[in-house]
Amino acid sequence: MLRPGALPQSDCGPHQLLVETRYLSLDPYMLRALSGQGRRRFAVGAPMRGRVIGQVIQSSVEQFPIGSLVLGEAPWQTRSVLDPAGLQIITGEDEHEIAAHLGVLGTPGITAWLGMRHLARPLADKTVLVSSAAGAVGGLAGQIAKLSGAHVTGIAGGAEKVGYVTQTLGLDACLDRHDPDFLAQLDGLRPVDIYFDNVGGRTLDRILARMATDAKILICGQIEQYSPNSPPPITNFHYVLERRLQIIGFGVSQIGARQAAARSDLKTWLKHGRIAARTNFVDGLENAAETLFKLLEGAHAGKTVVRV
Amino acid sequence: MLRPGALPQSDCGPHQLLVETRYLSLDPYMLRALSGQGRRRFAVGAPMRGRVIGQVIQSSVEQFPIGSLVLGEAPWQTRSVLDPAGLQIITGEDEHEIAAHLGVLGTPGITAWLGMRHLARPLADKTVLVSSAAGAVGGLAGQIAKLSGAHVTGIAGGAEKVGYVTQTLGLDACLDRHDPDFLAQLDGLRPVDIYFDNVGGRTLDRILARMATDAKILICGQIEQYSPNSPPPITNFHYVLERRLQIIGFGVSQIGARQAAARSDLKTWLKHGRIAARTNFVDGLENAAETLFKLLEGAHAGKTVVRV
Repeated sequence: MLRPGALPQSDCGPHQLLVETRYLSLDPYMLRALSGQGRRRFAVGAPMRGRVIGQVIQSSVEQFPIGSLVLGEAPWQTRSVLDPAGLQIITGEDEHEIAAHLGVLGTPGITAWLGMRHLARPLADKTVLVSSAAGAVGGLAGQIAKLSGAHVTGIAGGAEKVGYVTQTLGLDACLDRHDPDFLAQLDGLRPVDIYFDNVGGRTLDRILARMATDAKILICGQIEQYSPNSPPPITNFHYVLERRLQIIGFGVSQIGARQAAARSDLKTWLKHGRIAARTNFVDGLENAAETLFKLLEGAHAGKTVVRV
Repeated sequence: MLRPGALPQSDCGPHQLLVETRYLSLDPYMLRALSGQGRRRFAVGAPMRGRVIGQVIQSSVEQFPIGSLVLGEAPWQTRSVLDPAGLQIITGEDEHEIAAHLGVLGTPGITAWLGMRHLARPLADKTVLVSSAAGAVGGLAGQIAKLSGAHVTGIAGGAEKVGYVTQTLGLDACLDRHDPDFLAQLDGLRPVDIYFDNVGGRTLDRILARMATDAKILICGQIEQYSPNSPPPITNFHYVLERRLQIIGFGVSQIGARQAAARSDLKTWLKHGRIAARTNFVDGLENAAETLFKLLEGAHAGKTVVRV
């Protein structure tokens, strides 16, 4: 480990780090921002930004020695000069353990925990429905609901993902949104106590009519609406009053003081094999944009990460 | 007071009362039920039913002596044989005090209390918006929010009601939904922390875009949608996620153990002149149906009651 002051300072300010990018996190909120929705905006002409994992290659900050792996927000480029304030050091035995900090132990995991363990509770014996159930957040939300004693049905696109949801993740059932009679299958669901929604749009509208009295809808994502077209209108809003529904829009920024509890739960579950989490590695910074837009189609089960 | 057993039993069973109807409560939920929405249904061919105040004219039940005033659900007819189980005895010095049991001390008051004092809190220094602010529920909701330290703007239809809301009820401001530029006025509101919604429809849709981050919408009524036409779709639902909104559909049936606290607060406020409540008396059972449908147009400020 090099000591501060012994380092070449060519690229860094006195309290900065030069970081070589290793992994980029691809997240649906980026599509929301690019479609002009949401509070977050990306500056036109500037590089995309997001959560990245990188390796420190130049440092004058004692707590961040050269060679250490760091997690934080950074531009999508091969190297960045970063302030240590927004960074945390991470460790991992292998690439999957390292990338888990962008998935199950990162924003997707904490988001799923916040929705299911905090906002949706109590869950025991409840009927839970999760959309994008093979996705980074949905896959964890469904498993957390199962751990909490709920009966959980997922929604995913295609036979491979449906198999992943029921066999690998262990949900009780999974509907295939590519089935020609998918909407009719929704209509046949038994009343839903908690709908953890990652898609919004027409699916949400249809499910509003299937909610139980006093049920909750957690709005975590609206990926059906992140295309440049206008989002489809909601026609079944009247059920909110008729069935006394609670609809809660939420995001990971609300985790606050619960962050430590969330991380602790997720680490414990992961360590004891009580939750599964798949990471898809896509090689090459040059493929990041195309891979991001493939999230709209739900190309992969699990968390998608670009290996730079 | 006549003793049980000393009464003629011609119309009543041994544990029943013959009640002469005095006042009928007219409520927006009836329009919702008639439009085919909601869980409540009225049987075709049977008399309308609702909350009524009546006077006991025949009784074999000691707790309900002849001459006492009772409140409960009954058909819209001049006399009814009723079970005492669903009835409560009420008192009042005059007609306004008696009819208050259908308004400020009854379902509208308890509904407004439940929304503002329980679901919306904390209210101090919050920016609150109330639709149907001259109505039976909205008028009380707005005043309760003021008592709790909020800055409260109402929405009402026409100059007379706007004056009632700002002068009699004491709200800080009131928009007139009959103004040609009403929707533009909504767009000019400062961000709303709590919207107490009695109308739904296009007004709600427009207000979704004016909500502050982490704001709440309490869905108490949707009178814009109680016509036989399809309810207008919601196009601004995406703000639920973008602004982390909570939308809560609720009804008076959820009051539960808080009923005593609600009644006590409302009685105290009324006694000390901290809340105002107007009752409109419309004469004649034969005018009840027409008067009910006039609620759709917001014909009266305050609570409307039919004097039978």
